[in-house]
Amino acid sequence: MRAANRAFYAAFEARDIEAMAAVWEQSERAAVIHPGWPVFRSWPLVAESWRRIFANTDYIQFFLTEEEVVVAGEVAWVTLYENILQGMPEGGNALGESRVAATNVFVRHGPHWLMVAHHGSPVAAG
Amino acid sequence: MRAANRAFYAAFEARDIEAMAAVWEQSERAAVIHPGWPVFRSWPLVAESWRRIFANTDYIQFFLTEEEVVVAGEVAWVTLYENILQGMPEGGNALGESRVAATNVFVRHGPHWLMVAHHGSPVAAG
Repeated sequence: MRAANRAFYAAFEARDIEAMAAVWEQSERAAVIHPGWPVFRSWPLVAESWRRIFANTDYIQFFLTEEEVVVAGEVAWVTLYENILQGMPEGGNALGESRVAATNVFVRHGPHWLMVAHHGSPVAAG
Repeated sequence: MRAANRAFYAAFEARDIEAMAAVWEQSERAAVIHPGWPVFRSWPLVAESWRRIFANTDYIQFFLTEEEVVVAGEVAWVTLYENILQGMPEGGNALGESRVAATNVFVRHGPHWLMVAHHGSPVAAG
């Protein structure tokens, strides 16, 4: 379970759409809410959101904290903080820091846990 | 399932902590992420967050749209928009509008569905 969650962030850091596709349940019920964004539902739209994010991200690194996993039968969810270091839109070598609170929902498929929902929201400073 | 989700928003609109308590699984794994806030985990902290919000809310009304329910065994989750009309901090008769994207997770307890996680995040305009 925790490995599936880590694989999600590894795919995000690598900005690798194939690796991201392998993490997700590619279904109608797949849904994603990126910080400040509306809901995207169904795998094709979820995948498109990742392509757009990857295309606009030069560098991103996650430091995950307070990862709390709950398993309830065939479903599991994780709440955690994504402490993010990333390249800034103005480019150059500047790196920006931010903190996102996330809820990740997974469904068991045989030996694998696949992500079915990801919701991230900015945490206000202070 | 949809009734449990509606009962959550009814309790929120009524700013009624007893009604809110009846909607939630009062457990260690209960977790809430309000828009811009960090994660609060365990029912006592979740309840305290609602008390604070209710104490600072004179009026709030929800118009729910694109409510999408997924049931997977003993767990269900809902993604939706909360289109919110609420009293503004400056008081008076002014009402403010905002839009929040939410993910609500429920667990089945016999005939009832109890909320175990709520995550709301502001949707940027435009």
